[in-house]
Amino acid sequence: MTHLQHLPLGYGGEFDLISAALERWGALASGVGDDCAVLDVPAGQRMVLSVDTSVEGVHFRRPWLTPEEVGYRATTAALSDLAAMAATPLGVAIAMTLPESWRSDFSRICDGIGDAVRSAGAHIIGGDLSRGDALSMTLTVVGHTASPLSRRGARPGDALWVTGRLGGPLLALRAWEAGGAPSAAARERFARPVARIAPARWLADHGATAGLDISDGLSSDAGHLAAAGAVQLVLNLDRLPTIADANVEEAAQSGEEYELLVAAPAGLDTKAFEAAFGIPLTCIGAVVPPLPGEPEVDTRRGGVRVTVPRGNDHFPVA
Amino acid sequence: MTHLQHLPLGYGGEFDLISAALERWGALASGVGDDCAVLDVPAGQRMVLSVDTSVEGVHFRRPWLTPEEVGYRATTAALSDLAAMAATPLGVAIAMTLPESWRSDFSRICDGIGDAVRSAGAHIIGGDLSRGDALSMTLTVVGHTASPLSRRGARPGDALWVTGRLGGPLLALRAWEAGGAPSAAARERFARPVARIAPARWLADHGATAGLDISDGLSSDAGHLAAAGAVQLVLNLDRLPTIADANVEEAAQSGEEYELLVAAPAGLDTKAFEAAFGIPLTCIGAVVPPLPGEPEVDTRRGGVRVTVPRGNDHFPVA
Repeated sequence: MTHLQHLPLGYGGEFDLISAALERWGALASGVGDDCAVLDVPAGQRMVLSVDTSVEGVHFRRPWLTPEEVGYRATTAALSDLAAMAATPLGVAIAMTLPESWRSDFSRICDGIGDAVRSAGAHIIGGDLSRGDALSMTLTVVGHTASPLSRRGARPGDALWVTGRLGGPLLALRAWEAGGAPSAAARERFARPVARIAPARWLADHGATAGLDISDGLSSDAGHLAAAGAVQLVLNLDRLPTIADANVEEAAQSGEEYELLVAAPAGLDTKAFEAAFGIPLTCIGAVVPPLPGEPEVDTRRGGVRVTVPRGNDHFPVA
Repeated sequence: MTHLQHLPLGYGGEFDLISAALERWGALASGVGDDCAVLDVPAGQRMVLSVDTSVEGVHFRRPWLTPEEVGYRATTAALSDLAAMAATPLGVAIAMTLPESWRSDFSRICDGIGDAVRSAGAHIIGGDLSRGDALSMTLTVVGHTASPLSRRGARPGDALWVTGRLGGPLLALRAWEAGGAPSAAARERFARPVARIAPARWLADHGATAGLDISDGLSSDAGHLAAAGAVQLVLNLDRLPTIADANVEEAAQSGEEYELLVAAPAGLDTKAFEAAFGIPLTCIGAVVPPLPGEPEVDTRRGGVRVTVPRGNDHFPVA
């Protein structure tokens, strides 16, 4: 990998940077220093893997976030894909392109990466540090699960469930792009999302048949879930859980939420879920058989079919 | 991952780009389209993983390579880390930052990636496509092996072996940086390196105790092997296999060779190796106990100890 302990000594101080990061991470970084990381997948389990890139100026702008948040958010966005599969995280590898202008913030970025990895119960298993003109991080996350929760599998008769409260990232981006400052609640949801690792396991254990994380916005991701399962989703906008200052249309469009959208049996014990994880679990619709000529997602407001713009039209996320 | 089939539709044509890539790759891309790739590690095997980034202007310059070579080389550099562990490749995930200026070359880059993945016997399992100002590719490679060939483990009494012929990348970079053109042989070694997957398995099966791929240059990587194994290496420069136009000093410094340097028993059947793989296997030294006050690598030329500059002083590889 040109892994962490193997960068050319003395080359522009990369080795010093990596040593500093490893020192900060301590026991969180494990098995680093060979050409590859070596991982053992528990017997009977399957390995799941995802890669996710965050680029300055594309996925975030520098004034919006602290360096810790930049590292934390990029790592959480990747870990969220493991949650989307109801997988248990194992390891995270970090490929970072570090421009001179970010060099003095490197340790703080690493602290944020470490926070995200630690809170997911994973380890840092390797990386690659390059020079470049914009800060860019590609996080590779590896986990395991006996039965991955796919996007495919939603069955007519399932209910449609969402975790947490939506709308924060859209409001935060809208405020920043207009030159203002978002509310504390909206900013927190953008800057400090949480990968829903344990809630995803709970949902899988309680019969979830399909799911994904809301990275493109609920309206778009519901379409993905419907298409993958060859079903129609009836989505009741009135039920959408929102942060205090967002309306349901905003909640439906807001991307990079990193909450979970799952098809699962009706009648889940939402009180037990909220008690366990401190966030709501909300039934927002139903899975029905596909109807020829009908939209994949039948979105309703006050019982009337409405059209919600697809997510990701707020900030040009690539 | 914001994996390949899951990019926001219609967003600046990313979806079209990804569809075109998937079409070109055909059956080479497998299991793409969920939040994570799902892989099965054969029973009794361990999983190995590496990430490797190639950035335009840092690891290569655009005029040097065709778009196919840009994709092929970045992918092979990553796959070479699997060879360094004597692992069998399973899957490759591709995170690419694609500037507008490279957009028309995207399909050709993908063809090169596909060539490298196909020749390693792997599959494309996912990716992430972002906008950005410079072409950057982070390749995540996953493989498996019952017994990873580590950098640690060289034993006094082992011989030191190297695959292939060295010096090409250094001569190619030197020619390009001086405004000229490299020889065809030197250029080929830079533009079309080969991940030594099968030769690595052969070496592991014939008793190799430690190894790595030569990415920083033989002189540097010998130091890594010695340090990891807490041994001294005696390196006989006169024995170094070189391409036609390189001398042994150039061969010792040349980085990004992606040949293998291993500690293994003396007396390996080099004729059988060459017959099997079409490249030489050369004994270039020996592993001895560490000597206090002595260098980790005792480099000799005509029986006399010499100093060879460390690799990677040719081009600022981060």
